[in-house]
Amino acid sequence: MAGIAWADVPTADEVGVEMHELMRRLYPICRSISGDGVRETLRIVSGIVPLDVSEVPTGTQVFDWTVPREWNVRDAWIADASGERIVDFRRCNLHVLGYSTPIRAQMRLDELREHLFADPARPDVVPFRTSYYSENWGFCLSQRQLDALADAEYEVVVDSSLTDGSITYAEAYVPGASDDEVLLSTYCCHPSLANDNLSGIVLLAVLGKYLSGMALRLSYRILFSPGSIGPITWLARNEHRLGRITHGLVASCVGDPAPITYKRSRRGTAEIDRAVENVLRHAGDPYHVVDFVPLGGDERQFCSPGIDLPVGALSRSPADTFPQYHSSADDLDFVEPRWLGHSLGVYLRVLDVIETNDVYVNLNPKCEPQLGKRGLYRSIGGGSFEEAPLLWVLNLSDGTQSLLDISDRSGLSFAAIRDAATALEAHGLLQQREGSAGVVPAVTVTS
Amino acid sequence: MAGIAWADVPTADEVGVEMHELMRRLYPICRSISGDGVRETLRIVSGIVPLDVSEVPTGTQVFDWTVPREWNVRDAWIADASGERIVDFRRCNLHVLGYSTPIRAQMRLDELREHLFADPARPDVVPFRTSYYSENWGFCLSQRQLDALADAEYEVVVDSSLTDGSITYAEAYVPGASDDEVLLSTYCCHPSLANDNLSGIVLLAVLGKYLSGMALRLSYRILFSPGSIGPITWLARNEHRLGRITHGLVASCVGDPAPITYKRSRRGTAEIDRAVENVLRHAGDPYHVVDFVPLGGDERQFCSPGIDLPVGALSRSPADTFPQYHSSADDLDFVEPRWLGHSLGVYLRVLDVIETNDVYVNLNPKCEPQLGKRGLYRSIGGGSFEEAPLLWVLNLSDGTQSLLDISDRSGLSFAAIRDAATALEAHGLLQQREGSAGVVPAVTVTS
Amino acid sequence: MAGIAWADVPTADEVGVEMHELMRRLYPICRSISGDGVRETLRIVSGIVPLDVSEVPTGTQVFDWTVPREWNVRDAWIADASGERIVDFRRCNLHVLGYSTPIRAQMRLDELREHLFADPARPDVVPFRTSYYSENWGFCLSQRQLDALADAEYEVVVDSSLTDGSITYAEAYVPGASDDEVLLSTYCCHPSLANDNLSGIVLLAVLGKYLSGMALRLSYRILFSPGSIGPITWLARNEHRLGRITHGLVASCVGDPAPITYKRSRRGTAEIDRAVENVLRHAGDPYHVVDFVPLGGDERQFCSPGIDLPVGALSRSPADTFPQYHSSADDLDFVEPRWLGHSLGVYLRVLDVIETNDVYVNLNPKCEPQLGKRGLYRSIGGGSFEEAPLLWVLNLSDGTQSLLDISDRSGLSFAAIRDAATALEAHGLLQQREGSAGVVPAVTVTS
Repeated sequence: MAGIAWADVPTADEVGVEMHELMRRLYPICRSISGDGVRETLRIVSGIVPLDVSEVPTGTQVFDWTVPREWNVRDAWIADASGERIVDFRRCNLHVLGYSTPIRAQMRLDELREHLFADPARPDVVPFRTSYYSENWGFCLSQRQLDALADAEYEVVVDSSLTDGSITYAEAYVPGASDDEVLLSTYCCHPSLANDNLSGIVLLAVLGKYLSGMALRLSYRILFSPGSIGPITWLARNEHRLGRITHGLVASCVGDPAPITYKRSRRGTAEIDRAVENVLRHAGDPYHVVDFVPLGGDERQFCSPGIDLPVGALSRSPADTFPQYHSSADDLDFVEPRWLGHSLGVYLRVLDVIETNDVYVNLNPKCEPQLGKRGLYRSIGGGSFEEAPLLWVLNLSDGTQSLLDISDRSGLSFAAIRDAATALEAHGLLQQREGSAGVVPAVTVTS
Repeated sequence: MAGIAWADVPTADEVGVEMHELMRRLYPICRSISGDGVRETLRIVSGIVPLDVSEVPTGTQVFDWTVPREWNVRDAWIADASGERIVDFRRCNLHVLGYSTPIRAQMRLDELREHLFADPARPDVVPFRTSYYSENWGFCLSQRQLDALADAEYEVVVDSSLTDGSITYAEAYVPGASDDEVLLSTYCCHPSLANDNLSGIVLLAVLGKYLSGMALRLSYRILFSPGSIGPITWLARNEHRLGRITHGLVASCVGDPAPITYKRSRRGTAEIDRAVENVLRHAGDPYHVVDFVPLGGDERQFCSPGIDLPVGALSRSPADTFPQYHSSADDLDFVEPRWLGHSLGVYLRVLDVIETNDVYVNLNPKCEPQLGKRGLYRSIGGGSFEEAPLLWVLNLSDGTQSLLDISDRSGLSFAAIRDAATALEAHGLLQQREGSAGVVPAVTVTS
Repeated sequence: MAGIAWADVPTADEVGVEMHELMRRLYPICRSISGDGVRETLRIVSGIVPLDVSEVPTGTQVFDWTVPREWNVRDAWIADASGERIVDFRRCNLHVLGYSTPIRAQMRLDELREHLFADPARPDVVPFRTSYYSENWGFCLSQRQLDALADAEYEVVVDSSLTDGSITYAEAYVPGASDDEVLLSTYCCHPSLANDNLSGIVLLAVLGKYLSGMALRLSYRILFSPGSIGPITWLARNEHRLGRITHGLVASCVGDPAPITYKRSRRGTAEIDRAVENVLRHAGDPYHVVDFVPLGGDERQFCSPGIDLPVGALSRSPADTFPQYHSSADDLDFVEPRWLGHSLGVYLRVLDVIETNDVYVNLNPKCEPQLGKRGLYRSIGGGSFEEAPLLWVLNLSDGTQSLLDISDRSGLSFAAIRDAATALEAHGLLQQREGSAGVVPAVTVTS
C-alpha cells in the first residue's frame, strides 16, 4: 500500500516555479490542431517526460471524422499604405485566424472587414478564433484597433500553408505493477494562451516526470493531443484497449487563481469522481463540483455514449468562465506558480487515493478486537475516544467497503483511514480482500 | 413525431372565452350524481365533442358499491306564514340538500332546524351539502339567514323524487394511431358551482374538440361522470381493458386564479407525473406539486391499490383549499376566461410531451459526430456553445433515456430537446429505438 | 393486535419516582466490570424483575478477549502526616482508579503524583478513571484538591484485590407468543454515577417489571452486564441463537434533562430504527436522530460487522456529551424522576409499535369500499375529510406495506393507523397478510 512517494516531490511552491518556467518556454510557439508548432511543443515536453509521438495522415477516417489537412503559418500581417505592419503575427500569434488559408492581396477596408474578428465585449484584447473545418482566411484584433482603422487600402498577407500532412499527438507511459491504466489527457492546440491550455500541458508533463520515479500500482498514460480531433483519433486507434482504462482526468486551465472545479464523469459516481470529491472535501480550500454535461472539453469524447470512460475534468476556472478566456489576456502573468503548484498537489492527492483504495476484511469481525493488548489503545480508560479511524475501518471492513467508502461514510480523511488500515493489517487484524483493486493478478493479459 | 398541432388551437385568451361561454350555459342546471340535470349537461357537451352516453340502472353492483336510486328535483322552498318563499330552489339550486327526499309539511322552526344546513365559518354563503347514501331531507342556507329566522311556523316543500332509474356517464373517444389510451376524467355531479366543477367539464369538452381534429399517436378517452360512483362504475365495467390506459389525469377546479397544483399519481414517478412536472418547471409560472394522498377526488378510485392506474390530478386550487369551495360563492365571477385558457394550455403542453416522448439511439455513439460538416455547427470556432440540445441528445441517447429523461437531466425544455432530436434524425445521426413509445406496433390487439 | 397494555403502567410521573427510588438504593454501591458490587446491584434488581445470573470465570476466551481477573476494593485512602484521610474512598468511590492494584506505602508527593488523576477542564469534580487492561494503581481527585496538596509525605492505601474469579451478568426473560426476541441491553459497571448508567439499569428493570404482566407477541431479553466485556461475553456464549433477535436497543443515560437522542443501528433502516424515529416524530418533544458510528457504547459490539444485529441506542444525552459525564457531578440530583419516567414512556411506545407492526391486505382493493354503508363515514357529504387514516390504510394495504410504512408515508401517527386497521379488519375489509410479523408460526423451533 505505497501510494504517492511524497518525499520525491518538491514543495508546491518549488514545483509551481518549475511548471511556470516550462510554460515560459512553450508560450511563444504558435500551435494549432496540426503543424510544426505542436511538434516543437512536444519536443520540448519530451525533455521533461519521455514521449511516444504519433503522426496521423490527413484524410485518415477516425470514427465520424476525417483527419484534416495540416496547417502551418510562417508570417501574417496587415500593412497600411506606408508599409507599416499594423496587425502583425510576429507580435502576437493570435492575430491570425487559426487555419487561415494563404492570401496576399491589396484591398480596401470594406472588403477586408468581413475577415476581421474582434470581440466588442472585450474591446482591448485580441480574441482567439479558428476556422478548422470551413475554409476561410482572416485576422483577429482588438475592437479598439478595429474601430480605429482608416477607410483606406491595405496590404493583407497570410503566409500559411494548408496541405496534406498529418496531425500529431504524443503519449507518455508510466508503467505500474498492474496493466490497469489511468488516462490523463490534455490538449496542445492553442497558440499563446497560458491558462488555456499551456497550464494543462505543463501540469501533466511535470506530473509524468515525478510519477516516473515512483513504484506505482497503476500504470499511467498521459496524452498530449489537439483538442477534439486528438482524443477522437486516439480513441479510434486504441478502441480495442480501452477496457484497461480504470480512471481518467482531463487537465486544463489549472494555473489561474480560481478555486478548483471538478466536473464529474458521465457515470457520475465512478471511483475517480468519488476520489476527487473526497480529496477536495478534506483539502480545506474552496472548490466546486459540477455534474457532467456534454459541453466543454475533451471529456465530451471520453464520455460519449459509445466510449463512456470514467473520465472527469479537473480544472481551476473551467474554460469559458474567466474573462481572459480565449484572448491575449490569457498570458503568462495571469497564471501563477503557486496555483500551478497547488493544482499539481491536488492531482497527486487524487492519484494517491486511487493507488491505494483497497477493500479489506476484518479478520476478527465478531465484536471489536481488543486493541489495548496490541498497544493500539490508550491505557487509562474513561477519557474520550482517539481511536476513531481504527474503529471505523474495523466496523466497515466487511469485504464490501473500500477505504474510500469508509472515508466518505466516517467523514475522516482518506489518509487517516488508510493509516488505520495499515496499522490493523500490521497487527493481523485486517487482510486485503482477494480481488481488491490492489491485488495484482498473477497473470495479466496484454492486448 | 407530430405532437400537438398548435396551429389548430386558438390563443389561450380566445379559448378561455369559449370555455367561459360554455360554462355560462351549463351553470343554471341542477346536477347531482344522477338525474336529468346530468343528462342535460351531457347533451350540451355533446354539441362540443361527440359523446357516447351510458345509463347504469339503480341496483347495479359495481365493485363494493350499488348504483343508487335516481334523484330529480323540480322545486323546493321554505315559505313563511305569508306564503313568501324565504328559501327558494329556483333562486339558487344549492338551497336543497342533494338527494333530499320529498316532503310537503308545515312545521315550526324547532322541528325544521335539524334539516337546515349552514356554515358558521362562512356566514354569508349558501353551502353545498348532500346526503347521497343516507336518506334525509333538508335545505342549505346562509348562517346569516338561518340566524334571522323567526320562531314561527313554515311551509316546507321539496318536490323531488328518489326512485329506481339510472346514473348517467358519457365518454368522448378521440382515436389516435395507437390503441394506448390517455384517460381524462372529470365529474359532473355538482349543481351551480363554477370552479368545482363546471371548469373541469368545459376544459375536457373543449380539449376534446381540439384534439379531435389532430393526427395523434395516442388515443384519448374523456370521461364525464358523477363523482366517486361514476369512476367506480366505469372502472367496474371496463376492468378488462384498463391495461391499455398508459396515462391519465383528473381535471377539476381549473378556472380560479391560483397557481396550478399537480397531485402525483399513486406510483409517484409515472411518465405522466414526470411530464406534468417537466412542463410546469419550464412554463415560468408558479406551481405546486404534491405527493399522492388517498384523499381528494376521483383519483382515489383510479389510484386504489387494485386499480393503480398512472393517473394524476391537475388543478388550480385543489378542492377544499379555496374559501369559495362548496358554496354559492363558487360562481361564474370567481372563474375567469384567462385562467381557464391557461389551464387548457398546460393540459395541451403535457399531452404534447407524452405524444412525442420517444427513446432514440445515437447511431454514431463513439465520440461526437462531426456536426460542422452537416451544417449543424457554427463555422467560426472559439465562441461559446450554442449546440447544447444537440449534444445532450447525442450524449444520452444510448437507448435507455427518453427525450423526457434528457430534458429533465439537461434542464433544457422538452421542446428544445425534441427539436434537436428531429434535426439529428433528419441528418441520419439518430434513430428511434425499436419498441419506443412512439413505435406503433404492427399488430394491435383489440380486447 | 394487542400491543402495550397501557392500563397496566402507572403515569410517567409515578413510574419516574419509582425509578428514582430504585436508583437511590443502587447509587452507593461500588461497581466495576467485575466484583461484588455488580453482584449486589443485580441482587437488588432481581427484586424488581426476576434475573438469571451468570458468572464467567477469569481467563475464559470470548472472541478476541479474555475475561479479566476479578477486582474488589474494600477501602482506599491517602492520608497526610497527621493521619487525616484527605482522599477517602468511603466518601466517594470514584476516588479509587477502577481496577487499581493494592498498595500500602508511604511516599512523597513527587512520587505519588503520577498516580493521581484529575481533570483540569473541570477543576471541581472527581473524575472517573479506570485501568482495566493495564495494571496500575491510582486515585482520582479534583484538580483543585490536587493543586492544594502540600509537598509532603503521604500514606497511600488501596485495600483491593485483583484475583482469579469471574465476571457477572444477568438476564431477565419475558416470554411472548413468539420466540422472536427483543434484546434490551444496559451496562452495570460504573460506580456512583447516576445518569451513566444507573439510569439505564433502573429503566430496564422497571420496564421488565411492567412487561412481565402483559400478553405480548414478542419475547424480551433484558441484559445487565459490564460494558464491552459483558456484551462480548454474552454474544460469544449466545452466538448460535442470535438469529432470533429481531430488534434491540441499548439503554443508557436516560435520566438527564436533555432531549432524547436516538443513534441508529449499523443497518440504518432496520424496523427498530424506523419505529423509534416514527415515535419520536409524533411525540411532540424535541429529539435528535444520528447515524451509526462505531464509537460509543455497547452498540459497538452488537453492531460489529460479524454480529450486525438491528440494535440502536436510545438515550437522552449521549455519553460524553454532558458536562457531568464521568465525574462526581453525575449524581442523584442530576437525574430527575420526570425524565426517567419520560424515557420509559418512549421505550414503551417504541415497543408498542414493534409489537403490532403488521402487514395487511385490503380485501376490496378495486376502488374504495363503500365506508358509509358500514357506518365508517359521516353521513352528510360535502364537508372535509375525517377518514384519512381509514383511506390511507385501504390505499396502501396491498400486501407490501406495514402499518409503520403507512404511518411514515401518510404522516399520521402509528396509533391512528393501527386503530384504522383494527376498525377495517372488524368490518371484514382488511386481513392480516399471511406471514406478516404478527402471525405466530404454528410451529416454532427452539434452538
